[in-house]
Amino acid sequence: MNPTVRPVILSGGSGTRLWPLSTTNAPKQFLELLGEPLFEATLGRVDELGLGGTVTVVTGRDQLLAVERSLASKAIEGATVLVEPSGRNTAPAVVAAALISDPDDVLVVLPSDHVITDSPAFGDAVSKAVALAGDGALVTFGVEPSRPETGYGYIEKGEPVGSGFRVDRFKEKPDEGEAARLAGDGRHLWNSGMFVFGAGQILSEARRQVPEILTGVVAALPAETAGTITLGEIFSDIPATSIDHAVMENAANSVVVPLDAGWSDVGSWHSVWELSERDGNGNSLNGDVVAVDVTDTYVRSGSKTVAVAGVTGLVVVVTPDVVLVVPKEKSQMVRDLAAGWAATRRAD
Amino acid sequence: MNPTVRPVILSGGSGTRLWPLSTTNAPKQFLELLGEPLFEATLGRVDELGLGGTVTVVTGRDQLLAVERSLASKAIEGATVLVEPSGRNTAPAVVAAALISDPDDVLVVLPSDHVITDSPAFGDAVSKAVALAGDGALVTFGVEPSRPETGYGYIEKGEPVGSGFRVDRFKEKPDEGEAARLAGDGRHLWNSGMFVFGAGQILSEARRQVPEILTGVVAALPAETAGTITLGEIFSDIPATSIDHAVMENAANSVVVPLDAGWSDVGSWHSVWELSERDGNGNSLNGDVVAVDVTDTYVRSGSKTVAVAGVTGLVVVVTPDVVLVVPKEKSQMVRDLAAGWAATRRAD
Repeated sequence: MNPTVRPVILSGGSGTRLWPLSTTNAPKQFLELLGEPLFEATLGRVDELGLGGTVTVVTGRDQLLAVERSLASKAIEGATVLVEPSGRNTAPAVVAAALISDPDDVLVVLPSDHVITDSPAFGDAVSKAVALAGDGALVTFGVEPSRPETGYGYIEKGEPVGSGFRVDRFKEKPDEGEAARLAGDGRHLWNSGMFVFGAGQILSEARRQVPEILTGVVAALPAETAGTITLGEIFSDIPATSIDHAVMENAANSVVVPLDAGWSDVGSWHSVWELSERDGNGNSLNGDVVAVDVTDTYVRSGSKTVAVAGVTGLVVVVTPDVVLVVPKEKSQMVRDLAAGWAATRRAD
Repeated sequence: MNPTVRPVILSGGSGTRLWPLSTTNAPKQFLELLGEPLFEATLGRVDELGLGGTVTVVTGRDQLLAVERSLASKAIEGATVLVEPSGRNTAPAVVAAALISDPDDVLVVLPSDHVITDSPAFGDAVSKAVALAGDGALVTFGVEPSRPETGYGYIEKGEPVGSGFRVDRFKEKPDEGEAARLAGDGRHLWNSGMFVFGAGQILSEARRQVPEILTGVVAALPAETAGTITLGEIFSDIPATSIDHAVMENAANSVVVPLDAGWSDVGSWHSVWELSERDGNGNSLNGDVVAVDVTDTYVRSGSKTVAVAGVTGLVVVVTPDVVLVVPKEKSQMVRDLAAGWAATRRAD
C-alpha cells in the first residue's frame, strides 16, 4: 500500500532579506512580489502535485489571517493549520507536523516563500523523494549551484542510492573562497530547505538526536489533530533550531535528490530582479518610474515617482516608511540596513 | 561725487537643475538647502557690502510673498520690488531696474541663488567693478575655471584695463571638448552672471542693440519708482533674453573683473554636495538616513528613512512626490528626469 503523502507548508519567519518591503506585518510569502503571492503559488503547486494527504500549514499568530485567506482563495479545504506562539525555526515546526500525522505518512516539507518555475520537473523530483522516503530515507532536495552563493548551505553527494545520493556531509553557509570551491567541484549541491521523510522516521531521529525538542513540542501540542491547532505558550521555550541542523545533518539515512526545476528561495533583491520580467535594458520598473540611461536595475516606486538616471545594477525600493538604495550585487547588505533601521526606531 | 550704488537682486526663475526639491512653488533661492536660504544670504551679503543705494528685487508674482518675508527677516527696509507677470530672462528685468534708477546710479546685478563663501574678496571685486563702471564700463565678474564645466558661458580676457580686462569675447556654454580647451588655456573665465554697470550706460546700450526690449519694458512700467511695482501684462510679450546675450556680448566697453571668492551658482546636486558639510566618508546625509559602506554621497530623506548601502558618489533626494536617484557626476541628467516627470503628469 502506498503511504499517504502530506504536504507541510512552513510559513513562519518574516525575514529581513527583502526589507523594507518584507516585514513582520507583511512577510515575503504574502506579497505580490512576482505576481501571485508565493504562499498561494506554493498551495497551487501542492494542489497540482496531487499528493492526496491533508495540507498542513505551520505558521504564527500574526500570519494566521493571511494563511486562512490564501487557503480560501486557492479553494483548499480541510487544511490543518498549526499556530506557533512564536517562531522557533524549522525543527519544532516539522516535529509538530509529524506528531499530528500518522507515523506512516510521508511529509513533503516546503517553505512557503520559494519559487519553482518548472512544476513538472519538481513533481518528478518529489515522486523520487517519496519513493526513497518510503524506504526510510530522510530526503533533501539539492540544487546544482549556478554561482558561488554564500547565502545557502551546501550538501556533499556520496554514493548513488535509488534516484538520489547518500549525503556525505551538510555544510553550513560558506565564506566566499569556500563557496567558489564548493560551487565548482561538481560534488556539492545547494541545500534547498525542502525535505521529504516519513513522519515516524523524523520523529524517531528527533527522539535520538534532539529529545528536548520532541518533549517540548509534545508538551505544547493540544489534543486536536485537525483544523486550526494552537500550540501552547511553552512552545516558545523550545530552542530555535533548523531541521537541517537538528536532525538531517547527523541522520544515518540522509539522501539528497537533485532538483533542476527553476528553484529560487527569492533570498535577495538580486533574486527578485532575476525572477522579474525585464525590459530591453534589463530593467524591472514597477510603479511610477521615470528612468533615463538606466540598465539592469530593479525599481519599486510605492506611492512616489522614482526618477532615476545614469545607473546600472541598482535596486530602489520605496515603502511608506523607507527608501532603499543598494547595488543589486550587494543586496545582502539589506540585512545590515534593516538592523540599523530597527535600532533607530528603538532609539526614538 | 561718488555715484549711488544700487544692488539689483534677480529672483526670477525656478530652474529644474535641483529638481525635485527646487520647483516653481519652491524655487532654489528660498530653500534651506545649505543652511540659510540663498536669497536671504544674498540680502545679507549686499547689506554687508554697504553699497548705500536702495535694494531692488526683480521677481515674479509667485515669489512675491517669499521675497517680502525674506526682506522682513533680514530687516531690509524701503526696498523696491519689481514684479514681473512672467519671467522673460534677465535682459528685461535689468532694463526695468535701470529705468527706475537715476541714470548716474551704478547697478550691481546679483542673482539671488548663488553662493559666495568669501565675502571680503567679493567686496573687493565689487569695489573694483564699481570704479570701472564709473568710467563707463559694463562689468562682468569672471571666475577662474576649476574644471571643464559645460554648464557655464566663458569670457575671453583681452588687454588689462584698470583692475580688470577688456572682454575679447563671450562664449556660449561649450561642449565637452571645447570646455576642456577653454578651462585650460589661462585666457578664459567663467561668466558668473553677476554684473556692474551704470543705469544710463546699460539703457543706452539696450537702446542701441535691443530697442524692442527697451520699448516693451517702458510700456509695461507704471509711474511708480519705489515700493512694490507691478509690471503690466504687456511685459510678457517681450522676447525672453539674457542681459549677457542681449547687451554685454556686443557692447564696446565690456570689461571682466576676476572673482576669486568661493563663488558657485549651485547649479547641480553635485554642487550642493560640494558646498555641504560632509562627514569623514565624504557624505552629506540630511534627515533620517541609515548608511552602510557609503562614500561621497548626498542624501536628503524628506519624511522617509533613506537606507543606502554599498554606493559611492550617489545623490538621493526624497520629496513628497518624488524619489530622485542619480550619480553625482551625472547630476545634469536631472533636467531630463524633470522633463520626463512633467510629461507624465500632463498625461495623467
